[in-house]
Amino acid sequence: MTLPTLGLVGLGKIARDQHIPAIAATGLFQLAAVVSPDGATTDGAPTFRSQAEMLAALPGLDAVALCTPPAVRHGLTVEALRAGKHVLIEKPPAATLSELHDLVAEAQTAGRTLFTAWHSRFNPAVAETRARLADADIRGVAITWKEDVRRWHPGQDWIFAAGGFGVFDPGINALSILTAILPAPVFVRAAELHVPANRDTPIAATLEMAAAPTGAPGTAIGRVTADFDFLQQGEQSWSIAIDTADGRLDLTHGGTRLTVDGVPALAEPDTEYQRIYRHFHRLIADGASDVDARPLSLVADACLVGRWRSTAAFDW
Amino acid sequence: MTLPTLGLVGLGKIARDQHIPAIAATGLFQLAAVVSPDGATTDGAPTFRSQAEMLAALPGLDAVALCTPPAVRHGLTVEALRAGKHVLIEKPPAATLSELHDLVAEAQTAGRTLFTAWHSRFNPAVAETRARLADADIRGVAITWKEDVRRWHPGQDWIFAAGGFGVFDPGINALSILTAILPAPVFVRAAELHVPANRDTPIAATLEMAAAPTGAPGTAIGRVTADFDFLQQGEQSWSIAIDTADGRLDLTHGGTRLTVDGVPALAEPDTEYQRIYRHFHRLIADGASDVDARPLSLVADACLVGRWRSTAAFDW
Repeated sequence: MTLPTLGLVGLGKIARDQHIPAIAATGLFQLAAVVSPDGATTDGAPTFRSQAEMLAALPGLDAVALCTPPAVRHGLTVEALRAGKHVLIEKPPAATLSELHDLVAEAQTAGRTLFTAWHSRFNPAVAETRARLADADIRGVAITWKEDVRRWHPGQDWIFAAGGFGVFDPGINALSILTAILPAPVFVRAAELHVPANRDTPIAATLEMAAAPTGAPGTAIGRVTADFDFLQQGEQSWSIAIDTADGRLDLTHGGTRLTVDGVPALAEPDTEYQRIYRHFHRLIADGASDVDARPLSLVADACLVGRWRSTAAFDW
Repeated sequence: MTLPTLGLVGLGKIARDQHIPAIAATGLFQLAAVVSPDGATTDGAPTFRSQAEMLAALPGLDAVALCTPPAVRHGLTVEALRAGKHVLIEKPPAATLSELHDLVAEAQTAGRTLFTAWHSRFNPAVAETRARLADADIRGVAITWKEDVRRWHPGQDWIFAAGGFGVFDPGINALSILTAILPAPVFVRAAELHVPANRDTPIAATLEMAAAPTGAPGTAIGRVTADFDFLQQGEQSWSIAIDTADGRLDLTHGGTRLTVDGVPALAEPDTEYQRIYRHFHRLIADGASDVDARPLSLVADACLVGRWRSTAAFDW
């Protein structure tokens, strides 16, 4: 059987650490080419300098996975869809909501699969949490997403440049989990955004959210908060604590582990990218798309209704 | 023939100046009640203190028009839709995009008409401009939306409070026209937002935008900019200048007048609210909704990718 062929666009850390191993491990796609503007290479696949060159050289290519910075994803996705390719996009799927909505229309016109891969959702512990919350009386949700930007993004100035998302770059992962596990829509009511005096995006943010009334008795959801920090020293925290009438769930380690009332309930090896490629393969087979704008909407909403505050300058 | 009955929720300036006269002039709805938390009244319709009281007292009410501040529109719209009412919402239709997307789902579930009334679009000069631009070679679009907040919103502190939109409160009208007249999607590429040191929302903003490549030859759209200012002295400006290969269009006076190469082409009396109520009536008859998130998306996108700058404190 011939595997569908895939071109990987952008050969940075996430492509090397996650995408290439996951493509190999799942064996559902043949990595037919990579695109790297600076000429970087990987074993076993030819390298092109631009997506346009790859599309011209390999007209039979079936799909593209985009691992570039967010600012260029819209243009590359339009180019790939119009060339008849299925497209997987790393998170966040576009620089703005207007771009993302346009991609939905482009995918429909092209009749091709578009998949916005919010990777943090693809952990078994997230699916287990969603199942446990489906009928739960949820009294409160507290997101604590605190990491040291100097350790995880050393010298990456783009993250603090306008449009670079700042602390929302990791924080949007938490919001992608939140929207996946809650049984009701959630809205930003208020936010505080702290921007270093010499930068343009937040280095810390707090969000006050509220979930929609579902109308069903016992399903009202209490306070939902998020605490994002890029200057966390010592222990790093990527956790969501959920208080329910039946006990407390802690989804920790970026959504990979679940404890219930302090007792480990689920901890599987981190295979989220393998699940992503299995899902992409299934979407293509089904002629379907999977586009979710909600995590990006919550970030944009926080920027819209939030209080922007200047804080101490940041240097690496 | 019995007219459909309508309840008007929120009895502020826009309700008195525009909605009540337009409802009377068009004669398509019977104004059956008004809701005013402070007990304000209008001739010919009973007043209720809350929408919930009105819905309980008038179970046969057909439709609701919401003229409240944006922060409470989502909750009131959900309440009205779930009570089986058709809903017209003043601009902006919700406080956040997440809320607006939820309203689309609620309207579908309720099987009722939802109409986000971007009023500035309902001028004949806007329709004429759209028609002229459908196949035009558009070289550039410059929005200039400059007004004196002390004259038009005296003492309205809510507009400068978080979530109050600031200069985007008038600016979103320009963006609602822009998205109506351009034949391609438009995206925010960069923005500068100037917030008074003692306030939370911008008092001035500039946006750099780009329109989507349409793929058709000769339809590329050049630079699109917006210049919003709340401190305009002297002549006020609510204008959009469009340079095309065939000449220059100026849509001025908030979208009510069109000149082509300096020659007046269209100037009709301002009847946008009458057109809004005719459109609402037709949507109900057709069992349709008209919800457009694009103007709000552009504002949120500007907040997301923009540079936030502190400027001089503002006092009335």
